[in-house]
Amino acid sequence: MNTTRILRRGLTTAVARPDIAHFQSICPVLSPSTGHTASDLDPFNTDWMRKYRGQTTLVLKPTSTHQVSQILTYCHARALAVVPQGGNTGLVGGSVPIFDEIVINLSALNKIRSFDAVSGVLTADAGVILEVADQYLAQQSHLFPLDLGAKGSCHIGGNVATNAGGLRLLRYGSLHGSVLGVEAVLPDGTVLDDLSTLRKNNTGYDLKQLFIGSEGTLGIITGVSILCPQRPAATNVAFFALDSYEAVQRAFTMAKTELSEILSAFEMMDGRSQELVAEVTGKRRPLEGEATPYYVLIETSGSNKEHDDAKLEAFLEHVMEEGVVSDGVLAQDETQARALWGWREGIPEVLGHWGGVYKYDVSIPLPQLYDLVRDVRARMVEEGLLSETDRAAAETPAEFPVIAVTGYGHIGDSNLHLNVAVRAYDKRVEKVLEPFVYEWIQKVRGSVSAEHGLGVAKREFVGYSRGETELKVMKSLKDLFDPKGIMNPYKYIKS
Amino acid sequence: MNTTRILRRGLTTAVARPDIAHFQSICPVLSPSTGHTASDLDPFNTDWMRKYRGQTTLVLKPTSTHQVSQILTYCHARALAVVPQGGNTGLVGGSVPIFDEIVINLSALNKIRSFDAVSGVLTADAGVILEVADQYLAQQSHLFPLDLGAKGSCHIGGNVATNAGGLRLLRYGSLHGSVLGVEAVLPDGTVLDDLSTLRKNNTGYDLKQLFIGSEGTLGIITGVSILCPQRPAATNVAFFALDSYEAVQRAFTMAKTELSEILSAFEMMDGRSQELVAEVTGKRRPLEGEATPYYVLIETSGSNKEHDDAKLEAFLEHVMEEGVVSDGVLAQDETQARALWGWREGIPEVLGHWGGVYKYDVSIPLPQLYDLVRDVRARMVEEGLLSETDRAAAETPAEFPVIAVTGYGHIGDSNLHLNVAVRAYDKRVEKVLEPFVYEWIQKVRGSVSAEHGLGVAKREFVGYSRGETELKVMKSLKDLFDPKGIMNPYKYIKS
Repeated sequence: MNTTRILRRGLTTAVARPDIAHFQSICPVLSPSTGHTASDLDPFNTDWMRKYRGQTTLVLKPTSTHQVSQILTYCHARALAVVPQGGNTGLVGGSVPIFDEIVINLSALNKIRSFDAVSGVLTADAGVILEVADQYLAQQSHLFPLDLGAKGSCHIGGNVATNAGGLRLLRYGSLHGSVLGVEAVLPDGTVLDDLSTLRKNNTGYDLKQLFIGSEGTLGIITGVSILCPQRPAATNVAFFALDSYEAVQRAFTMAKTELSEILSAFEMMDGRSQELVAEVTGKRRPLEGEATPYYVLIETSGSNKEHDDAKLEAFLEHVMEEGVVSDGVLAQDETQARALWGWREGIPEVLGHWGGVYKYDVSIPLPQLYDLVRDVRARMVEEGLLSETDRAAAETPAEFPVIAVTGYGHIGDSNLHLNVAVRAYDKRVEKVLEPFVYEWIQKVRGSVSAEHGLGVAKREFVGYSRGETELKVMKSLKDLFDPKGIMNPYKYIKS
Repeated sequence: MNTTRILRRGLTTAVARPDIAHFQSICPVLSPSTGHTASDLDPFNTDWMRKYRGQTTLVLKPTSTHQVSQILTYCHARALAVVPQGGNTGLVGGSVPIFDEIVINLSALNKIRSFDAVSGVLTADAGVILEVADQYLAQQSHLFPLDLGAKGSCHIGGNVATNAGGLRLLRYGSLHGSVLGVEAVLPDGTVLDDLSTLRKNNTGYDLKQLFIGSEGTLGIITGVSILCPQRPAATNVAFFALDSYEAVQRAFTMAKTELSEILSAFEMMDGRSQELVAEVTGKRRPLEGEATPYYVLIETSGSNKEHDDAKLEAFLEHVMEEGVVSDGVLAQDETQARALWGWREGIPEVLGHWGGVYKYDVSIPLPQLYDLVRDVRARMVEEGLLSETDRAAAETPAEFPVIAVTGYGHIGDSNLHLNVAVRAYDKRVEKVLEPFVYEWIQKVRGSVSAEHGLGVAKREFVGYSRGETELKVMKSLKDLFDPKGIMNPYKYIKS
């Protein structure tokens, strides 16, 4: 944990009794002085992985944009530091305090404001849960253009603040394209109403873009408008075994050409990750033949089932004939489709089974993408931290701290999740991983954080992916918006 | 012309002889002191509509990013004002000087840097002509995700600097989603290398977004990387006649559902615009029946001709059966498809036939979109400026200065082009149009500039679409990046 190296800043002030009384006049408050216990505050101080822990004694739950504005006006005047908090499902410690920063939790700001079925534009409060938004849209034959594992808890405001990527990016693009407007409260309490519902609006700097991915360091997003596509009438899922990483790339190129406009996911899982899912869950593997080093899950979504089936079948025949894939299966119904997705979506949980996981979420140019996994694995073996043979995890001799080095991810987006499963967090393993992984990424001009963001976990490493001039401009933007440094301090970039 | 009201600023200095000598040591220079005449400089001083005219006596044509950096370093030190210029095809006077600002023309910065066929990422100099980029991509079965009338002259750097919308936005989204990286020279000459080729990169503020649509006011874009889709194997074009604007909206909703992922354009042209195209070009109209008040052009692009044909035919049958359209025709080959597109793309030229056109490029929520045209037409009739009957333009009695009030545009993007064709620019007509049109737009929370941008033409009117807080933040951003105000002065927003 990097937080041990962070020093509390003298810039901001500590919360005092009169402050709490003032906040009580604005909105619901959780604090020891309002009779709440440490365990009441615990969910707001801890991230869901229980990796990061803050020490706040004050949580505010505003129910309107106006209340958020009143809160920040006051915090700004008093130089009180705050942490904006959505569903608190982040992976980099961005949504919990480091010290005693006030948590401003947006879960009570949770109304759908409007939806226009002709244009497909949804406008909603920041605290609406992603799955709730998507279910609402489903009733109107539309789809939220973002999907991710944490959908049952994460907020759409948090998704925008962290520029979440997820499973539908290949098809529906990034939030920088689909978000049409943002309502945000600036650090001094001013409300910035850039909540346009227009697809085209070239009237000055596109301010909302700055908030997308700014992780609560420039202001608090309170509302979002977003362009939502029609919900596809047909979805297909196929699962393939492949003998080489070159074959994975070839299959991707063929899928782009032949499935083209209906391709909605192209996910790769390495052989090791699939062995472990089988071992831990005890489930029967989707393909009966011999294990292969790579697997790919393809999803299509379109408006005409017959056409989509025909395209996918032609593609299947083609990749089999050409020997690009060695085996494959096509889901026959939604239950089978969900089961196939389980072999991809179940990986993160399975890898946590033995005690700990070192997670890297990186972008790497496609041709080199899997080399990182190979190189890290080789280094772990060299250093005697990983057994050379890929035996069952349960049979790993105790002298090896590392259970497995695996790679999987969104090939369609050049986004690799490198995961190193360990018995327990271990300094020897960390020494091999860092700065090796970051230096490796830098060499290929990749990104040290593809979709998870910086938070506290990556703020030290942003220099591996962004140049000095960029960092200088970023810091000047931060100073411009938040001169007192009260917004989500100690995170994102060092200032 | 608004420029008459602009005063030359005392902040910047005038170019002197030693300056020219210095620039000659950096890059090719056009100026009277290097033997160039006023007519050599004229193309750089005048926009293509010949509506805006500057008075520069110095044009620089750098051939590398390094040269642009050297130029701006010097201009910054000497407080010399500059105008970045791409293909100079803008419609709002943003790419020509107002007074004697130095023109930095990027046409010599015109190399394709790289293209990766697996990821579809193109990296190129800013001065590459859009059509050149698209033809290069066509050879690799890919497509530039932007298309517009000026493609034979406009630069991709200019497209990004003005956040061009154009004809493919409905299908491929805005440049905020497809541009992956920008290389820009900041006003002080520093090179900002944010030329990422990654689809996902959450490492700090997304700086490139600020440059998209900033119209050369924050720096000069010298390079661009952009995600390019596969070139569709099949394209279809259909043309419909409709009896009401409600029917237009209904047809759009049906097209979104039934053509869904293959719908690549949904353009509306009003009856008046089509009468005028027929009258001026003498071409035979695509549909033989009686004239209707609205026409729609639909384009589909997909990977499988057979599937696309089937979808479009089913859609045709459905809209005919339901009485949504009264007549329709489907292009049988590319020549016919181009001819149908001519009825949409030929409108702007035709409207200029009588002497002048007042052009408004606005976003309006779809249900109210055409009301603006109706209201403007009614006001013109009321004021005795337009004949009440829609007779042939050639027969318009001389006392009416207005030939026609027409509306057409990208319905799929809620983007209307309101065009008022006149015999000559006329103060009486202007008085009826402004501020009426802008106030109308403001009332429905539309945009006074959907895709053309602000330039000098709209800088006075940005307040109709953006709030005070937004404008304040914009100005502070401008001051942060360009404290000396040397970048494209007198334009965009008032500072």
